[in-house]
Amino acid sequence: MGIPHRNMSMVPRVLFGAGSFSQLSAILEPKRQGVKAPFVFLVDDCFANYSDVVDQIPTSYEDRIVFVSSEEEPTTEQVDLLVQEIILQFNSIPSGIIGIGGGSVMDLAKAVSLLLTNSGSASDYQGWDLVQSPSVFHVGVPTISGTGAEVSRTTVLKGPVKKLGINSDYTTFDQVILDPNLTIGVPAVQRFYTGMDCFIHCIESLEGTFLNPFSRVHGEKAKSLCEAVFLPSQLSDSEKREYLMMASWLGGISIANSQVGIVHALSYGLSFVKNIRHGVGNCIVIEHLNNYYPKGLETFRRMRDFNEIELPTGICENLSENQWRQITSIALSLEPLWENALGKNWKSLIDEKEIRELYEKM
Amino acid sequence: MGIPHRNMSMVPRVLFGAGSFSQLSAILEPKRQGVKAPFVFLVDDCFANYSDVVDQIPTSYEDRIVFVSSEEEPTTEQVDLLVQEIILQFNSIPSGIIGIGGGSVMDLAKAVSLLLTNSGSASDYQGWDLVQSPSVFHVGVPTISGTGAEVSRTTVLKGPVKKLGINSDYTTFDQVILDPNLTIGVPAVQRFYTGMDCFIHCIESLEGTFLNPFSRVHGEKAKSLCEAVFLPSQLSDSEKREYLMMASWLGGISIANSQVGIVHALSYGLSFVKNIRHGVGNCIVIEHLNNYYPKGLETFRRMRDFNEIELPTGICENLSENQWRQITSIALSLEPLWENALGKNWKSLIDEKEIRELYEKM
Repeated sequence: MGIPHRNMSMVPRVLFGAGSFSQLSAILEPKRQGVKAPFVFLVDDCFANYSDVVDQIPTSYEDRIVFVSSEEEPTTEQVDLLVQEIILQFNSIPSGIIGIGGGSVMDLAKAVSLLLTNSGSASDYQGWDLVQSPSVFHVGVPTISGTGAEVSRTTVLKGPVKKLGINSDYTTFDQVILDPNLTIGVPAVQRFYTGMDCFIHCIESLEGTFLNPFSRVHGEKAKSLCEAVFLPSQLSDSEKREYLMMASWLGGISIANSQVGIVHALSYGLSFVKNIRHGVGNCIVIEHLNNYYPKGLETFRRMRDFNEIELPTGICENLSENQWRQITSIALSLEPLWENALGKNWKSLIDEKEIRELYEKM
Repeated sequence: MGIPHRNMSMVPRVLFGAGSFSQLSAILEPKRQGVKAPFVFLVDDCFANYSDVVDQIPTSYEDRIVFVSSEEEPTTEQVDLLVQEIILQFNSIPSGIIGIGGGSVMDLAKAVSLLLTNSGSASDYQGWDLVQSPSVFHVGVPTISGTGAEVSRTTVLKGPVKKLGINSDYTTFDQVILDPNLTIGVPAVQRFYTGMDCFIHCIESLEGTFLNPFSRVHGEKAKSLCEAVFLPSQLSDSEKREYLMMASWLGGISIANSQVGIVHALSYGLSFVKNIRHGVGNCIVIEHLNNYYPKGLETFRRMRDFNEIELPTGICENLSENQWRQITSIALSLEPLWENALGKNWKSLIDEKEIRELYEKM
């Protein structure tokens, strides 16, 4: 017997359909642990003035809506602060945490639900399988498609020294609601960048050495759905919303059971040092990985052109030597990503110098 | 708001991989409720003399292996008897029920785990959402691919008056192990019939009126995997085993969230009255549904020919009038299947006479 296969944790309940968000109340009420144990809704603050969504959030007793900004990627400090506020404000552990927003809000909701039952700081749990206790009940309601955060067993946070996920079986949502109508208001550019997060997950998963048939079949379907959405097709707008939401779901399952690769390794560095958002960072990076993902890059470029996207350039022009050390060491520290992309002897195939050369082109 | 969308229950843990069956012990031990609460392994008796599989079953304390025949499709009576035996034999409710076998064994394991915590007979729960209490922990280990029973929220049983599933959220397995190596010994003919169960699920789901995007994307991928396995391709035998297992999984998810159609409606009648096994029955039926599933039938026939399968004929030649009444009324009683296939006004599109005419050709 070789390396054990991974016992994958799946989202146990999923509600899919245009308009399904209106069923949230029916889903939550049986989970209420008492009138003192509230549901806490973490909601992307882009909805603060968008009453359609907020009006549909079912609040009773001490339930509370907390608007969170997704301008910045979520941090361990932000999680710790949210957890502290919830503990101080209520007499009981909440009945549940419901995240309504994009990947950042998904990640916040997952992390807060974990830290309500695991002591210390979120940064203590960045890594693989460090979480000891089950989280409180948590529900993910994505309002943009592509991150796969709604289905993954990780929550990616920037900590004081690293950007890294809390990877654990307890991280996975207990319930997800996939309502394509919630993505209607997403601006086209953001829709592209986030959709590409999914496409790039698929490329990295399908062309990685960790690939297994379970990941492959999910990734293949997700990739073809991305192409149907972002290349010329007969799909209506509502079908595009539906299929992109499904692409995110299947792509997330694919990646959860394999691993990302060089795009993510370099994109994490950009995010940490230059504060570039994840979706944009991935697109900037893949443009320069012709040696590693040539076929994926060719398709990416067709999608980029068809959707008239102009990528930022000159990102790394003015890095200090200290920042250069930081960005290359962050990228290199993500060992499983390199191993997935290049195989077991990846250390002989890439070094700081080559990574810096790649970044210098961005 | 129209008809509510279904909050789908998914298998929360899945272990995939050739050889993964050897990890069963590591999965079970944390679930043991005490030394008096055994794990009961329901195992297809085709493995009774096949020591490789049985040798790998981890038994300790009072754990027990029960061989069950899958010659006949499972009955409510068989479930009731197994539950009674378990209750009489042990002082505690079992820690878990593990089904190791084909669709029949999957269905038995699911039903036994439900009836250990829900009083009365299995026949009391045939229908939709009649189960009141959660089942005991139950694990599915399929040893043939195609039924989708490993992932579905139903357990199809023949009762005293009907063949019908126990459809409930508690039916779904808590854990599934997908080890393609366990299907190595399946005879080619059986592999074809069971694989076609999956293919036909996809046809009925994809061409049904209940179709939603969630079911569609799972069904499309499952269908294309079936075609890769059963039509000429470059796949190795081990890849065929892997992809057929994934086809069954995705096809099961597709069908769990939509509905089967006319093939299953008529096949259920054949099964009940003529004792034709489900997989064979589906193939016999689809041959005569050119008016309903012409494209699916065309592909089916290519697969049938490439795999050199000869289907039985003359099945309904000697039915008594009583049997004719029974077979047509069973087929017509499966209203959701007809509605899925033909739409809301299906009753104006099909009647007993036409159903009998279809059966007379089989």
